[in-house]
Amino acid sequence: MPFIDCANIACGFHASDPQIMRRTVALARQHDVRIGAHPAYPDLVGFGRRSMACSPAEVENMLLYQIGALDGICRAEGTQVRYVKPHGALYNDMMRQPQLLRAVMTAVKAYSASLPLMLMSTRDNSESQAMAAEIGITLWFEVFADRAYDAAGMLVSRNLPGAVHHDAETVADQALRLAKGEALTASDGSALILQADTLCVHGDNAGSIAAVQRIRQALQALPA
Amino acid sequence: MPFIDCANIACGFHASDPQIMRRTVALARQHDVRIGAHPAYPDLVGFGRRSMACSPAEVENMLLYQIGALDGICRAEGTQVRYVKPHGALYNDMMRQPQLLRAVMTAVKAYSASLPLMLMSTRDNSESQAMAAEIGITLWFEVFADRAYDAAGMLVSRNLPGAVHHDAETVADQALRLAKGEALTASDGSALILQADTLCVHGDNAGSIAAVQRIRQALQALPA
Amino acid sequence: MPFIDCANIACGFHASDPQIMRRTVALARQHDVRIGAHPAYPDLVGFGRRSMACSPAEVENMLLYQIGALDGICRAEGTQVRYVKPHGALYNDMMRQPQLLRAVMTAVKAYSASLPLMLMSTRDNSESQAMAAEIGITLWFEVFADRAYDAAGMLVSRNLPGAVHHDAETVADQALRLAKGEALTASDGSALILQADTLCVHGDNAGSIAAVQRIRQALQALPA
Amino acid sequence: MPFIDCANIACGFHASDPQIMRRTVALARQHDVRIGAHPAYPDLVGFGRRSMACSPAEVENMLLYQIGALDGICRAEGTQVRYVKPHGALYNDMMRQPQLLRAVMTAVKAYSASLPLMLMSTRDNSESQAMAAEIGITLWFEVFADRAYDAAGMLVSRNLPGAVHHDAETVADQALRLAKGEALTASDGSALILQADTLCVHGDNAGSIAAVQRIRQALQALPA
Repeated sequence: MPFIDCANIACGFHASDPQIMRRTVALARQHDVRIGAHPAYPDLVGFGRRSMACSPAEVENMLLYQIGALDGICRAEGTQVRYVKPHGALYNDMMRQPQLLRAVMTAVKAYSASLPLMLMSTRDNSESQAMAAEIGITLWFEVFADRAYDAAGMLVSRNLPGAVHHDAETVADQALRLAKGEALTASDGSALILQADTLCVHGDNAGSIAAVQRIRQALQALPA
Repeated sequence: MPFIDCANIACGFHASDPQIMRRTVALARQHDVRIGAHPAYPDLVGFGRRSMACSPAEVENMLLYQIGALDGICRAEGTQVRYVKPHGALYNDMMRQPQLLRAVMTAVKAYSASLPLMLMSTRDNSESQAMAAEIGITLWFEVFADRAYDAAGMLVSRNLPGAVHHDAETVADQALRLAKGEALTASDGSALILQADTLCVHGDNAGSIAAVQRIRQALQALPA
Repeated sequence: MPFIDCANIACGFHASDPQIMRRTVALARQHDVRIGAHPAYPDLVGFGRRSMACSPAEVENMLLYQIGALDGICRAEGTQVRYVKPHGALYNDMMRQPQLLRAVMTAVKAYSASLPLMLMSTRDNSESQAMAAEIGITLWFEVFADRAYDAAGMLVSRNLPGAVHHDAETVADQALRLAKGEALTASDGSALILQADTLCVHGDNAGSIAAVQRIRQALQALPA
Repeated sequence: MPFIDCANIACGFHASDPQIMRRTVALARQHDVRIGAHPAYPDLVGFGRRSMACSPAEVENMLLYQIGALDGICRAEGTQVRYVKPHGALYNDMMRQPQLLRAVMTAVKAYSASLPLMLMSTRDNSESQAMAAEIGITLWFEVFADRAYDAAGMLVSRNLPGAVHHDAETVADQALRLAKGEALTASDGSALILQADTLCVHGDNAGSIAAVQRIRQALQALPA
């Protein structure tokens, strides 16, 4: 918490429960970290990483339920949900299926017109931008410092070699380029410029805290 | 829905799910029925009717979660949660354990200072009234037209003979007495006057719709 | 129960729970109906009808768990699981993804080499037959009396007109043809002969009991 | 696993899932460790530690379900459930409520007449022994090396000082006394002899592996 600006907090569908949510929200608030709802498919066993064939209406309603649930917990800590970022398979599915992305956006808008949706930045974000403009919500485009990108600006699959940057220097360098709006080199060798409103670091592996600290240092060294 | 003023809507812990909640909320709104959150212990298999040894903190957080979840669904239908009534074993437990009642009140207050809590009217409501005054929430006292009361103003156990009024006349008569502030006769023969802000009818049995209609007719015949 | 020979009993993942399973098993036993395990994806909200991207290992283990759970309940009623039929989306997925069908067969074999697997009969069952021979289990091919078939011997999608036979005569006629090994007319007009070891009737719609009775009558009128 | 003889394996109700159960069973088998079913109340959020007001019939059926489920997983690893030990609140409740203990015994007997039930050894085990004799099952009485006992031979509540032995010497000494049938000193100063068929060590704290190793060393030093 001391090293991040935004925390995606699980809402009980892929992980967590009301008790743990309360503790996590309290911790985020104590460190002045912005709280994001991290809704997911209802799959505790699979940690929300298994795609489920849910209808757009089902996705819309499970988002409203989870955002509201976390926001209810937030009220008891004098804070609130500040943005929404779908988790795992739901995140991947909405990036590939426009009708699911529309369901997600519809839920976010219905919950609060001022709530931004965090989604993945790709080479061409124009379709999701057009949809967000039509529905009337704000988008925050997210980039990754520790992952390789392909020509379309999608993440290289973890099954392929070179998908994940393990070297701290490489990660910090990619973070800096993204922050400065400079091009990355995609897996096909092409230059790739990505809109970068926020930078994602996973919290569930050993090196993540060190990585976050190093990235933060690198970014703070930038001229304001 | 056409015959009631308030609907207690399950929040997914003892029954329902985001899809069904959305349909129920839409139906309530269409009939201009006030929506109440009906939070429960996490027990789908037992329909929330099995007491669980949850701590006050756990009860507080599960209430915040469930109220928020239903309220999230409500936003998509342009409405909101208007009161809270705990369900089943949680309702019974909070009536007997002051630390659980305090946890429930604390959650309701944290969610919204203007949200009333519905709880059971008994012969002497002074303790719960004092607690509500201290915490700063409104109480709605609930009475039953189809159940016999004991000397303390608690419901006679369903295991005992005469616990449930099956005769429609008796039910309508008890509803009228309660509405007019007249005394009922408790199971020990004593007179029992109950504060009656709202009247509960269960939706899960065959005769309930007929009973509601008859009660409504009887009440409408009262001088305003 | 009085009109069927085999009952597919839900195992708690898409429906049911230990109490209901016990009652259903007792009822089946009382009517001398063969008990089949009806395992599914873990999705109570979606009634197991939403496909989930589970790995073959996950499918294998969820089958072992569910078959064992039902068999445990059966022991208390002096009976046992006699066959396995996957439910809903899992049934459909295994018919289309050979690695899932292999996972299902592997689980059935590991549970008991003498336990048959019920799966859908299609125009050409040779691939599943070869796989079953390799793994060493028995297959029971299932046909439908109330559904139209396409040229491949797959069910016509419910979204298309004519997918479901609503006329009782048509249903009984199709049942008879299947029982006698006569050809049906597929949706493209071609003749379709299906191996028919068992005939499925859904229990969850109003007309199903009447349909079962009519089919049974028609079949009993056949020369033995 | 290398240091124990018996492993209580969670069955998915308070922890675990089919995948993790499979891995745990495989690990136990690899180390030649006897597998025990560790059934619990259906309460993942509370890790089965919250008492639930379940009826004896509900307890019986949830045991059959969970024992069967684990046994199904065991079959795929060429092994089987060798004993049953209820978990957490269910364990505590059955030690205090004879009708629940009877439900547990009934389930174990129905599952397999040769399956032992592990339960807590107290100063006077005669009632549970009589019940087991009547129902026809074997009991394994379990003792604790790291907990203080009260006069009745029940564990001193964790809320009281001195309830848990943290000193490794004290733990090893208590293990030895129990193994040799020597008296412990109960919290009221009385001598307490406990029938000890098995010795429980919790797996969920940091020091448990060291404790197990030390106890095993001490026991191996005993003359056979």
